[in-house]
Amino acid sequence: MAAVNPPRGMRDFLPADKTRRERVLAVIRERYRAHGFDEIETPVMEEYSRLHAGIGGDNEKLAFNILKRGLDADAVRAAADDATLDVTALADLGLRYDLTVPLARFYATHRAQLPSVFRSIQIAPVWRAERPQKGRYRQFMQCDIDIIGDATARAEAELIVASLDTLDALGLEGGTIRINDRRALDAMLDAFGFAPDERPGVLITIDKLDKIGPDGVAAELRDRGATPTAVDAFERFLLRPQTREYTPYGERQIRKGLPEGVADEVVTHLVAVGEAVAAARGVAHDIPLVFDPFLVRGMGYYTGTIFELAHPSVSYSLGGGGRYDGMIGRFLGQQVPAVGFSIGFERIADLLVASADAEGTSVVLVHDRDVPVAELLTLKAALVAEGARVRLEQRTKNLKALLERATSDGYTAFATVSAGTRREALELKPLS
Amino acid sequence: MAAVNPPRGMRDFLPADKTRRERVLAVIRERYRAHGFDEIETPVMEEYSRLHAGIGGDNEKLAFNILKRGLDADAVRAAADDATLDVTALADLGLRYDLTVPLARFYATHRAQLPSVFRSIQIAPVWRAERPQKGRYRQFMQCDIDIIGDATARAEAELIVASLDTLDALGLEGGTIRINDRRALDAMLDAFGFAPDERPGVLITIDKLDKIGPDGVAAELRDRGATPTAVDAFERFLLRPQTREYTPYGERQIRKGLPEGVADEVVTHLVAVGEAVAAARGVAHDIPLVFDPFLVRGMGYYTGTIFELAHPSVSYSLGGGGRYDGMIGRFLGQQVPAVGFSIGFERIADLLVASADAEGTSVVLVHDRDVPVAELLTLKAALVAEGARVRLEQRTKNLKALLERATSDGYTAFATVSAGTRREALELKPLS
Repeated sequence: MAAVNPPRGMRDFLPADKTRRERVLAVIRERYRAHGFDEIETPVMEEYSRLHAGIGGDNEKLAFNILKRGLDADAVRAAADDATLDVTALADLGLRYDLTVPLARFYATHRAQLPSVFRSIQIAPVWRAERPQKGRYRQFMQCDIDIIGDATARAEAELIVASLDTLDALGLEGGTIRINDRRALDAMLDAFGFAPDERPGVLITIDKLDKIGPDGVAAELRDRGATPTAVDAFERFLLRPQTREYTPYGERQIRKGLPEGVADEVVTHLVAVGEAVAAARGVAHDIPLVFDPFLVRGMGYYTGTIFELAHPSVSYSLGGGGRYDGMIGRFLGQQVPAVGFSIGFERIADLLVASADAEGTSVVLVHDRDVPVAELLTLKAALVAEGARVRLEQRTKNLKALLERATSDGYTAFATVSAGTRREALELKPLS
Repeated sequence: MAAVNPPRGMRDFLPADKTRRERVLAVIRERYRAHGFDEIETPVMEEYSRLHAGIGGDNEKLAFNILKRGLDADAVRAAADDATLDVTALADLGLRYDLTVPLARFYATHRAQLPSVFRSIQIAPVWRAERPQKGRYRQFMQCDIDIIGDATARAEAELIVASLDTLDALGLEGGTIRINDRRALDAMLDAFGFAPDERPGVLITIDKLDKIGPDGVAAELRDRGATPTAVDAFERFLLRPQTREYTPYGERQIRKGLPEGVADEVVTHLVAVGEAVAAARGVAHDIPLVFDPFLVRGMGYYTGTIFELAHPSVSYSLGGGGRYDGMIGRFLGQQVPAVGFSIGFERIADLLVASADAEGTSVVLVHDRDVPVAELLTLKAALVAEGARVRLEQRTKNLKALLERATSDGYTAFATVSAGTRREALELKPLS
């Protein structure tokens, strides 16, 4: 028969992977709860119009849409009467492509029942109809925490401390945060003389600084046709030794990385976040924060601080987020301060592949074919009651293969069972 | 503004509900794992053709379908050219409406990597475009365990013991199982003289026995135009006192509930299941099984034993399942024995509404507005490190309302924080 596979770009998880993923999720959930965040859940679908309200940026184009129920041929023909297809005539719902649009919708629905500062956890899959490629999937998990209703640096600090603590709990100590502020970026571009309508393109180029270096950035900006005097000034700034020189996090470093003219309130906010994170982490002289004046982050909706989670074991980020004060109140018709952090669950789950299975005794009972079912189930129940995990396996000719398979499935011991074997006579032998 | 709501028939879960649901799921997951079942996960979508291969019964009509990506007006017009709409021209994927079709697909994809007897756990949402009504939702969780590759009574016994143990662990001791066998039902209908093509309709009526009684069943069968002599004979059988008289589970009771002519192997299988469950549960004289010769269960795919989980606290069933040997191998082109049990998560989660929140200390730190962020985060981190769950709340004029809200959110203690307060000086007071 032809190969049978899950849909394109989507994955099945076999027991070993699924167990590991659930264990990581349990740690994340538990740590975020300890930090005072509360988990919520929304349906996987939202109304088409909300998913296409402009909040989702480029992801809106990647939404999977749900065919209306009860469509007939006439309705479909009407939808196609224009040369440009009217998708809303065919689809009324879509699968979420992120957890931010659903959070904005949830907040609008339930605000009256939520605390004035609401700290949410969302742990849930999202879907994007991307061209499948290595490491990109059309269904993947997101783990977001958000603080809604707090405009102070307290919110950023709580998110960052909770995320670093979670990373520690997963055995990934030593995480650091790169931080910046969209307002500082904007002020920087202004100061160098880039025009407001150039900004989006210029930011896309600056985002490549780590990959292509200062020369590469300047060259690409010239290719883009950005204002020449602005590019020249920006290049000089990038090449100053002190701009990218490492110094401990604090006001001095932040001011040094920015041109004149960035508002004091931005600097004060960034300093306050750093002080609070340092105090909470008990690391006065080695704050796990790096101010990066060239950190951009993709989504257009950020309005203030932006940050990314880095870890010495990998070159890519393990999560990130930022402040997006304009968005959460969107469906409510109000301005509500909000800041969020999304931990990179899929990347972290892959990193932890080799981590040890920290379970109690897992026993395989290898039984002869003729052992009465009632005897077998009695033995199994006795071991389960003692706290073990128990799998029954009927003995096969190749006992070695059977035991190897059990070992690779995480079982740690086995015992053989013949008709009449009682619990007292059961001898548990370790599986190597 | 107009009310903003989740899509029709779907639910948001606020923190209290979400926490309770996750706690129930964690217990189910942990117990099933202890009994040697392994959790897997499949994407929420499957190919349209697999969802409409006849396995899903009536649920196939309720599938949410996914609009193809990149459709243009011409393609849509072509789809509508027939008077009857060709849905497959518009939709290539659909959301799963149960966990059995995905399991059959998963098994076909991964069989070579699975043990010869595979015990799966699936805990995941499914979607059905049903007319919304009280207690019926368009997205809901299913929790299935299945044993693939074991045709013996061992499989049924393992499923039933694991499910009863799970119910115990959820604080719902005293569950019982109603059990029957599709082959016994078929033999019964044969014995009374119903024609094979009458069976589906007759079974639908018999399924109502609990609600409408023997007289009601006989009347409805006559209304249906079922073979009159068969209805007469069946009515006499239903009205015999011994047919529905309670006696302890065992061969005697099973034979008594069946007409002559039911194959011995069916009776032997049912007796073996009962003996094994009794032995494993340690209840030789009060087996938590009731043989119910009139138990039908809806899905057409059952081929052998069928069962339902009952609990004295409710009149509806808390789960059920059965043997469906013809189906799991469907996409593999092979016959593979399989039996499954689906525990009624949504009903159980609703039942456990009032159960106590068994968490450690949860502390609300009520702080003055002027407490520096670094001090606040330090206090929070200290309490988190001691194992507490901690929420920050800025003091408001109405302290009482703030504390009541925290209490209803599951917090158990609070402390007030002013500028300069240190951990040593923090006085935790109980929230009533």
